[in-house]
Amino acid sequence: MRVIVTGGDGYCGWATALHLANRGHDVAILDNLVRRSWDNQLRIETLTPIAPIQRRLERWEQLTGKPIELMVGDCCDYPFLSESIRRFHPEAIVHFGEQRSAPFSMISRERAVETQVNNVVGNLNILFAMRDLVPDCHLVKLGTMGEYGTPNIDIEEGYITIEHNGRKDTLPYPKQPGSFYHLSKVHDTHNIHFACRIWGLRATDLNQGVVYGVITEETEMDELLINRLDYDGVFGTALNRFCIQAAVGHPLTVYGKGGQTRGFLDIRDTVRCIEIACNNPADSGEFRVYNQFTEQFSVSQLAEKVKEAGSKMGLDVTIEHVDNPRVEREEHYYNAKNTKLLDLGLQPHYLSDSLLDSLLNVAVKYRDRVDMKEILPRVTWKKGAVEEAAGVKVG
Amino acid sequence: MRVIVTGGDGYCGWATALHLANRGHDVAILDNLVRRSWDNQLRIETLTPIAPIQRRLERWEQLTGKPIELMVGDCCDYPFLSESIRRFHPEAIVHFGEQRSAPFSMISRERAVETQVNNVVGNLNILFAMRDLVPDCHLVKLGTMGEYGTPNIDIEEGYITIEHNGRKDTLPYPKQPGSFYHLSKVHDTHNIHFACRIWGLRATDLNQGVVYGVITEETEMDELLINRLDYDGVFGTALNRFCIQAAVGHPLTVYGKGGQTRGFLDIRDTVRCIEIACNNPADSGEFRVYNQFTEQFSVSQLAEKVKEAGSKMGLDVTIEHVDNPRVEREEHYYNAKNTKLLDLGLQPHYLSDSLLDSLLNVAVKYRDRVDMKEILPRVTWKKGAVEEAAGVKVG
Repeated sequence: MRVIVTGGDGYCGWATALHLANRGHDVAILDNLVRRSWDNQLRIETLTPIAPIQRRLERWEQLTGKPIELMVGDCCDYPFLSESIRRFHPEAIVHFGEQRSAPFSMISRERAVETQVNNVVGNLNILFAMRDLVPDCHLVKLGTMGEYGTPNIDIEEGYITIEHNGRKDTLPYPKQPGSFYHLSKVHDTHNIHFACRIWGLRATDLNQGVVYGVITEETEMDELLINRLDYDGVFGTALNRFCIQAAVGHPLTVYGKGGQTRGFLDIRDTVRCIEIACNNPADSGEFRVYNQFTEQFSVSQLAEKVKEAGSKMGLDVTIEHVDNPRVEREEHYYNAKNTKLLDLGLQPHYLSDSLLDSLLNVAVKYRDRVDMKEILPRVTWKKGAVEEAAGVKVG
Repeated sequence: MRVIVTGGDGYCGWATALHLANRGHDVAILDNLVRRSWDNQLRIETLTPIAPIQRRLERWEQLTGKPIELMVGDCCDYPFLSESIRRFHPEAIVHFGEQRSAPFSMISRERAVETQVNNVVGNLNILFAMRDLVPDCHLVKLGTMGEYGTPNIDIEEGYITIEHNGRKDTLPYPKQPGSFYHLSKVHDTHNIHFACRIWGLRATDLNQGVVYGVITEETEMDELLINRLDYDGVFGTALNRFCIQAAVGHPLTVYGKGGQTRGFLDIRDTVRCIEIACNNPADSGEFRVYNQFTEQFSVSQLAEKVKEAGSKMGLDVTIEHVDNPRVEREEHYYNAKNTKLLDLGLQPHYLSDSLLDSLLNVAVKYRDRVDMKEILPRVTWKKGAVEEAAGVKVG
């Protein structure tokens, strides 16, 4: 299958592009490399040293003989995007090419606007290019479980059947996203749903949970293929950040009470879920939504698991509750459904001591690269960036 | 009360600004005048000849001694917007300043992107300016009944209480908007709701139905104060368009079967609803949603009413069903609630023969200004603009 992976130089995108290529698909990466530029602007770095995308791809081809084409450019640049799609003529577009950090979107007005314009316009451009150039192509779009927020009822997969005043309908599940980034994904969801309805496009929206881990079968083939691993307060996500904090002897920083519960998944399941979605395209006009996570944990539970695994490795791990920089419920009901991908054959990697070990091992291996100043959150939901240090503009 | 009306040079905005000023509020109009520029680009004109905004406002002040300040600039221009808000220090911002035509947003990719970026960014800018400069100010935001689409259950005012698997929560009402314009309003709604939640802002989202009529107490004071009246296929809305078609002897063009049912209101009720919302501000942190319409009609019912009223005036009115340029249900359940504004004191002007007469009279008075080429729809939901004539770029 011919697949374009937008954002293929990023964390999930890179692992996915290699996995699809390894499975025999004809893959192109379309990426403007802005993620590396944001690292520079915010003075942060991935824990693991990543090679330039061109060197990564050369090495991949040497090792496997399965070339991945590189298209360097922006989804918001329609002439570039449409020409790339016209020429490659993909059967599926896996769209990871969006700004994906909630704290980044809360730094300032400028970053909020940048996030929503970048994500919404890039996604609209893909929809129009599909309508005009590849109407049978299947859009596999990365959404987020954060679109749902924390309702006091079970979270279904995209839609909910509502009985009301004696009548019944199945409607889009109500959304209560928790940052300007999460809002941008809700905007995308509504736009894609509409495009499927009026133009007969095919789309699968994957509402992904928090991804953890760094190793996949493909990225561990060679040091040059190593994936990025973010631990900073802007791009670092809970479990990855905790493992790195454990490795450097920093207390695990739980935001607030730590009762915030979310869905999580191993990056090895991310790449498998994408492949499953590609192999099972939506029907024409169908807007399909899958919740893409394998287990639910509270932040406190995650911290306890890292502490336990760290102790087994001889690390002295402590847990610290810090002021929550976000505005979110810290104790709440949470029960989200995730059966659709399992029904299509997903065999989950569950969070286990061995996984924690391997994440912790990577963290320990590279711990000399950690910048201790970048560990604590420096963006609050109420005020934006709290300091100008490191080039972050105050909100 | 100090009130900024964004989009105060437009159809609803102009009538609202005058009404609020007439009631003794201290009003400023903030408008980039782009609506007049879109008229030029699309080669269309309001039926009623409107004066330049500056002349309108001079005349208003001469007549009433109640000056309205004019700030010419764009909500998307943050330095301009924030300086205007800092200086005027409004207690309420009535935000009409968005691209408001569904067909306009469906002309092409460029117009879809323009609509969503203009509306979403302008609205985000207002939210950030409120947070940083006037945190107690009340945002009165114009949404649209079109955000809800046509669900098979009753439409509530912004929220719905859902019982599901033995649990219960009150959540944002699911949205199924029908154009890139309507989608932009859904995006705004989610963004404002979030800003109220995290920053404690006050906001009222008025999901307005289709507005008809041209005369309000203030705009009929003088010919120079006359409001715009659009009948073209891009900015003209159903009832206004039908009256003008009747006046020039053009068949009333019902799209498809005509069973599409919507909420409608008289522009005299629009201005009153805005005043009611301003006089009853939302609480800090509250995101309040009112459905702003007074009656429901199907498009066929509207056409029949115009035909009947026209016949009484001696006009020979016929009804023609044309291919529906939109993708929408033409026969569906529709029952939307609208009690909250009534509870606050709204006394509706119902659609009556006398109103139709006055609209028809205005249409007859200016019928020599009608450009017959602009009456039929030239934008389809599936393909965008169907012709390049009149400067509309093909999608």
